[in-house]
Amino acid sequence: TKSKTSKFANVNFGDRGMSLEQEINDSNTYYLENDIAVIHKKPTPIQIVKVDYPKRSAAVIREAYFKQASTTDYNGVYRGRYLDFEAKETKSKTAFPLKNFHEHQIKHMRQCLSQSGICFVIIRFATLGRLFLLTASDLFTYWDHQGDGGRKSIPLTDIEHLAVELHYQINPRIPYLDAIDNIIDEASSIH
Amino acid sequence: TKSKTSKFANVNFGDRGMSLEQEINDSNTYYLENDIAVIHKKPTPIQIVKVDYPKRSAAVIREAYFKQASTTDYNGVYRGRYLDFEAKETKSKTAFPLKNFHEHQIKHMRQCLSQSGICFVIIRFATLGRLFLLTASDLFTYWDHQGDGGRKSIPLTDIEHLAVELHYQINPRIPYLDAIDNIIDEASSIH
Ligand SMILES: [Mg+2]
Ligand SMILES: [Mg+2]
Repeated sequence: TKSKTSKFANVNFGDRGMSLEQEINDSNTYYLENDIAVIHKKPTPIQIVKVDYPKRSAAVIREAYFKQASTTDYNGVYRGRYLDFEAKETKSKTAFPLKNFHEHQIKHMRQCLSQSGICFVIIRFATLGRLFLLTASDLFTYWDHQGDGGRKSIPLTDIEHLAVELHYQINPRIPYLDAIDNIIDEASSIH
Repeated sequence: TKSKTSKFANVNFGDRGMSLEQEINDSNTYYLENDIAVIHKKPTPIQIVKVDYPKRSAAVIREAYFKQASTTDYNGVYRGRYLDFEAKETKSKTAFPLKNFHEHQIKHMRQCLSQSGICFVIIRFATLGRLFLLTASDLFTYWDHQGDGGRKSIPLTDIEHLAVELHYQINPRIPYLDAIDNIIDEASSIH
């Protein structure tokens, strides 16, 4: 509850009442308004069945269903590059469960990667208040080994090693493009 | 009607019963399945007001409204580049009316262009059965001069001069990425 104090009370790791999605949306608004990047959350796909068209007022959807998204949550453009990512949270303190991802999201990220897009996930360990940016190719390593006796989750210690930790700040709240700069610069130094 | 023959009956300019959007979606499916590009139509944004959760069946949206989209219809990645575009049709035989565009779509394309995205519109003159790919910067030239006594439409003769004409084929139905290849190659030869 709001009045309860926790040992994290004075630690600036983001408003605990705000969802990761909202924090990323806020960061994207900052990036957009400052002409840094254009990244939007994709609308939830809906199957519309019935729409009423009342006189002199807006059309009202009266029957519709949520559809499975065929892509990830976010995409856009930064420094001429295509960015595509998912945001995921876990309450676990020790590992990120792979069941948080759907096969179609993995497939979409593979497709984008094959077109030289920059694909990644932003993972929040909600209980720990820690945030990481993990590239899709590192995620795939774990995803692809689930079947052959591999783990069903990525240990936090592995994430600490592989991923870039992101630290909350005022604006943008989650400065995830700083980590992308390194990815772009490393890629171009290879070429 | 389906049985009515027109003078275009044997001309392969696409199924007249199919919307431009459907034709582009089909082309995108071809590009995706052949690992050429990952381009999706963005879902229509919906403001959901009321949802029922019936026992043992899927959630049903019972009240929702269409929201104004803040971006264009399509985006994705091709050859590492970010692509962003709108598809528009007109019945006019002589010019493309600028009122087909919304200010927010223009603004979004300007933002993407400023991040070095590749932005364009696919315009269909439905009555003529002709299709063009016009770059966003060429569109802006006309858009920006509407106010100071400029035309409220882009003459077809100007479009013929500025844009790339696209010709329907079997697969992909609208081979618009061929025109994008030229844009990418010209841009990299300048650098
Ligand atoms: Mg998500
Ligand atoms: Mg459109």
